[in-house]
Amino acid sequence: MPRTIVVAAAQLGPIARHEGRAPVVARMVELLREAKARGVGFVTFPEMALTTFFPRWHIEDPAEVLSYFETAMPGPETQPLFDAARAFGIGFYLGYCEMIPGRTGAHHLGYNTAILVDPTGTIVGKYRKVHVPGNATPDASLKLQHLEPWYFDDGNLGFPTFETMGGKLGMLICNDRRWPESWRMLGLQGAELVCLGYNSPSLLPDNPKQNALRKMHHLLPMQSAAYQNGLWIVATAKAGLEGGCHMMGHSCVIAPSGEVVALSATDGDELLTYKIDLDATQEYKRFFDFATYRRPAAYGLITRPHSEGQP
Amino acid sequence: MPRTIVVAAAQLGPIARHEGRAPVVARMVELLREAKARGVGFVTFPEMALTTFFPRWHIEDPAEVLSYFETAMPGPETQPLFDAARAFGIGFYLGYCEMIPGRTGAHHLGYNTAILVDPTGTIVGKYRKVHVPGNATPDASLKLQHLEPWYFDDGNLGFPTFETMGGKLGMLICNDRRWPESWRMLGLQGAELVCLGYNSPSLLPDNPKQNALRKMHHLLPMQSAAYQNGLWIVATAKAGLEGGCHMMGHSCVIAPSGEVVALSATDGDELLTYKIDLDATQEYKRFFDFATYRRPAAYGLITRPHSEGQP
Repeated sequence: MPRTIVVAAAQLGPIARHEGRAPVVARMVELLREAKARGVGFVTFPEMALTTFFPRWHIEDPAEVLSYFETAMPGPETQPLFDAARAFGIGFYLGYCEMIPGRTGAHHLGYNTAILVDPTGTIVGKYRKVHVPGNATPDASLKLQHLEPWYFDDGNLGFPTFETMGGKLGMLICNDRRWPESWRMLGLQGAELVCLGYNSPSLLPDNPKQNALRKMHHLLPMQSAAYQNGLWIVATAKAGLEGGCHMMGHSCVIAPSGEVVALSATDGDELLTYKIDLDATQEYKRFFDFATYRRPAAYGLITRPHSEGQP
Repeated sequence: MPRTIVVAAAQLGPIARHEGRAPVVARMVELLREAKARGVGFVTFPEMALTTFFPRWHIEDPAEVLSYFETAMPGPETQPLFDAARAFGIGFYLGYCEMIPGRTGAHHLGYNTAILVDPTGTIVGKYRKVHVPGNATPDASLKLQHLEPWYFDDGNLGFPTFETMGGKLGMLICNDRRWPESWRMLGLQGAELVCLGYNSPSLLPDNPKQNALRKMHHLLPMQSAAYQNGLWIVATAKAGLEGGCHMMGHSCVIAPSGEVVALSATDGDELLTYKIDLDATQEYKRFFDFATYRRPAAYGLITRPHSEGQP
């Protein structure tokens, strides 16, 4: 397969709390149609792309919580997405909430998951978010809750990479981007393109000092990681005013140089495209030459367990 | 001790190949004198601050190579620096070449080292550069050689931290700044301020595509590391046209937010000062809350040895 590919961040605007899958999937199919017209071979959709970002609320009704999880992928409501991708010959990354069979109740129902689908519509990889941010239990004193650890288990698939789309691809989800270990795990396996979807509030009402730095803190760790690991990044937002909370856009493509080479300009549905050369990663992989220059024996604390007293 | 301190990057302009210690130490004492007048409590000098950056040459004369190494610290020529620091009540970081007793010949004579000296003139910490960049053997085909692994052994002290100056300090040297593991090792020990000296060419004649990105690649990994580990960074250049090679300046202070809050404007001797609050690190250390949110069990490849096939 060719080593040059047009990639796209298929940013989504807000999704209402009780909207249901059908209109969202229709919007995603429309973005795939535009992608086809613009020569795109691979599309990255956001984290939790099929529904509103419900962990901003403490929801006590088990039926509503369950409604945000997928029990099958594809399922009847998501099949049109796979059909469109196959018809257009476009691969994609999709973030969604993955139900764990047998779980019941109004919390801890599953994983915050992403899959990689190739241009034949076949699921070729799965990742479950390792760095699940926020509060493990509801805290009504916060202006904006972030209850991912209340609803989700930690990911248990490690940081896998997949040979597809003519290269080696990895997946991360949202908060994973702030941890250098996420990227290093993928870099050490030779990842050339990492896809990442996110739902990040533009403002933090409980920590307003951070507000002016939100965009910087979104981009900075990814730019550094792209450079330090010699890989391309496509990062895609769910953006805009959703459930009373404005979510940042700033979907982007980052080059192995660390440069932001494409950046979304809206907070709605938007297809951001960029032609990448997977071989452009080689310059940086050669520069850092892990086998020659890394010193794993000096990094012991990084994998020392919390149980041994390591924070 | 107070948690607020005025720190300085004491950038040095070029040092000639056969200049000797005395004029360099006199320039450093002058910078300490200015530091005293500007209320500075702690000064960071560059990597290899006492001599020219000799690894840019393949030097075959053992006597000349030996002349770049210190056999005692302080020695007769560096004692005035310690005396001045004590007289002014200023602590400092100093980079120099540390001779290994008994080594002979024209290469592999010692370590690329930095020490931490407290305001009483007492050495309270030592670090030996772990990530030694460049070529292990001379290669006359290169326009600009970089022979650190030819002259230096790998550092063997790990990434220690030191309680001094009212906080917890760490040291890194030059190329260490490009590796996220260096910072993480210090961050996991609670470092609040990391000092780093460097000698980095402004241009890479053997890889000119990189030239326009040199400043970005200098700052980006440090900004990201400051944010991801919640620590202050003072990074100090040996700058200017030295031995036919222009060395970048861009000495800087980076806040725990990742913002570059001070940046040198010259490529000569320059004292860049900034008042830091060591407690400003807490906001970011709390945000990342390593004990709650890191997942060491998922990071195994990062410490997997090369001998087990890990690049």
